[in-house]
Amino acid sequence: MQFKKINNGDADFFQKTLGINNVLLDEESKQNYSHDETEDLKFLPELILKPSSVKEISSILKYCNEKNIAVTPRAAGTGLSGGALPVFGGVILSIEKLNRIIEIDDRNHQVTVEAGVITQVLQDAVKVKGLFYPPDPASKGSCFIGGNIAENSGGPKAVKYGVVKDYVLNLEVVLPSGEIIWTGANVLKNATGYNLTQLIVGSEGTLAVVTKIVLRLLPHPQFDLLMLVPFRSAIEACEAVNKIFMEGIIPSAMEFMERDAIDFAKQFIEVKNIPIADDIKAHLLIEVDGNDLEVLYKEMEKITNVLQQFDISEILFADTADQKNELWKLRRSVAEAVKSHSVYKEEDTVVPRAELPKLLQGVKDIGKKFGFKSVCYGHAGDGNLHVNIIKGEMNNEEWNEKLPLGIREIFQLCVDLKGTISGEHGIGWVQKPYMNIAFNPVQMNLMKQIKNVFDPNGILNPGKIFD
Amino acid sequence: MQFKKINNGDADFFQKTLGINNVLLDEESKQNYSHDETEDLKFLPELILKPSSVKEISSILKYCNEKNIAVTPRAAGTGLSGGALPVFGGVILSIEKLNRIIEIDDRNHQVTVEAGVITQVLQDAVKVKGLFYPPDPASKGSCFIGGNIAENSGGPKAVKYGVVKDYVLNLEVVLPSGEIIWTGANVLKNATGYNLTQLIVGSEGTLAVVTKIVLRLLPHPQFDLLMLVPFRSAIEACEAVNKIFMEGIIPSAMEFMERDAIDFAKQFIEVKNIPIADDIKAHLLIEVDGNDLEVLYKEMEKITNVLQQFDISEILFADTADQKNELWKLRRSVAEAVKSHSVYKEEDTVVPRAELPKLLQGVKDIGKKFGFKSVCYGHAGDGNLHVNIIKGEMNNEEWNEKLPLGIREIFQLCVDLKGTISGEHGIGWVQKPYMNIAFNPVQMNLMKQIKNVFDPNGILNPGKIFD
Repeated sequence: MQFKKINNGDADFFQKTLGINNVLLDEESKQNYSHDETEDLKFLPELILKPSSVKEISSILKYCNEKNIAVTPRAAGTGLSGGALPVFGGVILSIEKLNRIIEIDDRNHQVTVEAGVITQVLQDAVKVKGLFYPPDPASKGSCFIGGNIAENSGGPKAVKYGVVKDYVLNLEVVLPSGEIIWTGANVLKNATGYNLTQLIVGSEGTLAVVTKIVLRLLPHPQFDLLMLVPFRSAIEACEAVNKIFMEGIIPSAMEFMERDAIDFAKQFIEVKNIPIADDIKAHLLIEVDGNDLEVLYKEMEKITNVLQQFDISEILFADTADQKNELWKLRRSVAEAVKSHSVYKEEDTVVPRAELPKLLQGVKDIGKKFGFKSVCYGHAGDGNLHVNIIKGEMNNEEWNEKLPLGIREIFQLCVDLKGTISGEHGIGWVQKPYMNIAFNPVQMNLMKQIKNVFDPNGILNPGKIFD
Repeated sequence: MQFKKINNGDADFFQKTLGINNVLLDEESKQNYSHDETEDLKFLPELILKPSSVKEISSILKYCNEKNIAVTPRAAGTGLSGGALPVFGGVILSIEKLNRIIEIDDRNHQVTVEAGVITQVLQDAVKVKGLFYPPDPASKGSCFIGGNIAENSGGPKAVKYGVVKDYVLNLEVVLPSGEIIWTGANVLKNATGYNLTQLIVGSEGTLAVVTKIVLRLLPHPQFDLLMLVPFRSAIEACEAVNKIFMEGIIPSAMEFMERDAIDFAKQFIEVKNIPIADDIKAHLLIEVDGNDLEVLYKEMEKITNVLQQFDISEILFADTADQKNELWKLRRSVAEAVKSHSVYKEEDTVVPRAELPKLLQGVKDIGKKFGFKSVCYGHAGDGNLHVNIIKGEMNNEEWNEKLPLGIREIFQLCVDLKGTISGEHGIGWVQKPYMNIAFNPVQMNLMKQIKNVFDPNGILNPGKIFD
């Protein structure tokens, strides 16, 4: 792929279109927008644009499409697959100024927002009206809903409530041609033409730039109960996950953390009052929610009965809001904690839930074969295991040579177990060499042709998903 | 569109490929496969094929693609938008022989089925294992799951449990080229490439032929309660729908029936013990379900309290399984009953739930303007109102001239209310003249180009969705 470099004439056009303050050309800004949260990857953009309206985005895309300038759309830059990296330089199109909650339609249990609204801001705003938007990635305090749409994000509540795609009713998007369209309608059921909405969700900013989003909402559940369960065997913790579902219970969260994950997190954020005995190898963090406390206590009892079949230590029940927050803070900080501990590579494996023990065992076996350690944690109730491969004592040569081989075997195991290579982080820049494990040339060709329908000149987020 | 007519050589090829008994050429068969349940439309196919395997389907499509023969895939023929009509003659590709339930994976709460399995057969088979597949159209006793995928069907449970698209994890499909692919993976979360699965769901057999389906399942709820609520005003019945949701309750069914709908149904199937006073104008059929009877009684009480704000007559609570079946039989027979009563045209309108009173009032006003009556019923909790426009005393000339104008106004009203022109029946053959109300040329062009990616020669279900 070859793109035109940005010259003074281009910069002039952008400054006239957006106002001089919304076009950043300085080195510091280029550094700031050169990375997301994916390992330590950096690519310098030539210029950063901060449009304030869909009309401005339309003008930018039309111009870049005509001039063959690469455009990398960027939400909050919290992505973990390099989707927001400007790998061909060009323009960073930041949606940070599109941050209005346009309408909370509580009569219809819907909300319409601009794509740059922070996920937690959205959640808090609808909660005031008694409504609930469940999908919240660990980065919910900083990520944008537009980025969540791009990656079809999940988060801990997905096990009961589903992922982002299950809440998106309608999208306003700008095509690379500059044309602005809505993808569907604001309805719960739709059998009118092809599902363009679902095609855009998870397309990682390669088909169109999402500008407005209509989400369905639920009544907010009134109560939740939370417990932390220590296991003496990590494999047994994974086995317990499915046993609980087999009892007909659907928890609102079912999170798995290996010993190291929780240890790193405790060092990272200084958590009090969570003692962990030396023989504990893993934890499950289990939440149930609903509108009837009695029912929730019964569910907790049923879960506890299942857990007694396994080699567990004393369960910690979070009794207060503070304790619950502490436990969730711990869980949410795991990724950053592991990251700060060593050079690492994070994989976002996903398999059918009951295959989780096989996946965990396989990851450990593959690690032994290639000489690397891993710290695993994730959304066990969905079969979604984040595998953090740790460089630790490996030298650079070993790391660079063996890591891709090890990852390839892990992903092949996922696919053999009828899973796939990303559950919620996306393919972006770093996983695309592995796409041929999940898809054959016929499938890949369909996807590439769909890309070509939306973006015939290939200017939108080039270098992502496809090798 | 022009297609090659089928000659003896083609018939020979099909007979060799499928066996002589699976290729039907006789007049009676052509008549039998010339229609679905859409009004009284008939188009004769040139030949009917009944393949028994995905491989045979692959051979058929490859051949027809090379020879430019039109192929109309057909499930059970219960569709209401003419999706299975062979409008260009050619081949009917019936999936009726692909009727195996391949695996009920109760460990993972998943089922893998062939596309020709009857929806109710699937539901009953998984229920034996304590599992639940919620989407069931009124035709569940005869329709095929493959047809439900094609139309993204809903049914009464959609209000709480979602529609077909919310249960499809992965699809085996045959492309017009004959290539066989899976669209995704058997996982609850997936951020790996474009969502081909959701693109196929609801594409009405125009992109590929679905052969196998992996569905996620839920634990089957243990209890349900059902009530029939008579209203003295149809508009008030629609208003009550949203009031119930505003209390934070999500019923497992929330069905609306105008007086005439229930009267026709009672004549059609001879229902006992459901007396309806003369002043009743509409009914709501409301169900709640779950695993705790106490909770359900509380919900019913809350619903009853809401209903007291409206001008209702005595609520009928279904106390026994027989009574429940009777009420559901009544609801499910409405469509056929209305159909048997007069020449009619059924529309599948859908709007955001709270706009239902405006939609109903609008339909009646538009009817007055053009001189037609309508019988309305449907899945009120989803904002999905089936509008049966009745020919009644109108003469043919008036009917043919005014009907399209009236429909156009009804659909425009739906779109103005942020709804769309089909909630669960699809566009097929009969609604395509109205697609330009829901979509502008830019959106239509994207869809047509996607069609072209999958089916460059345009042999698969030609004449559907697009004008």
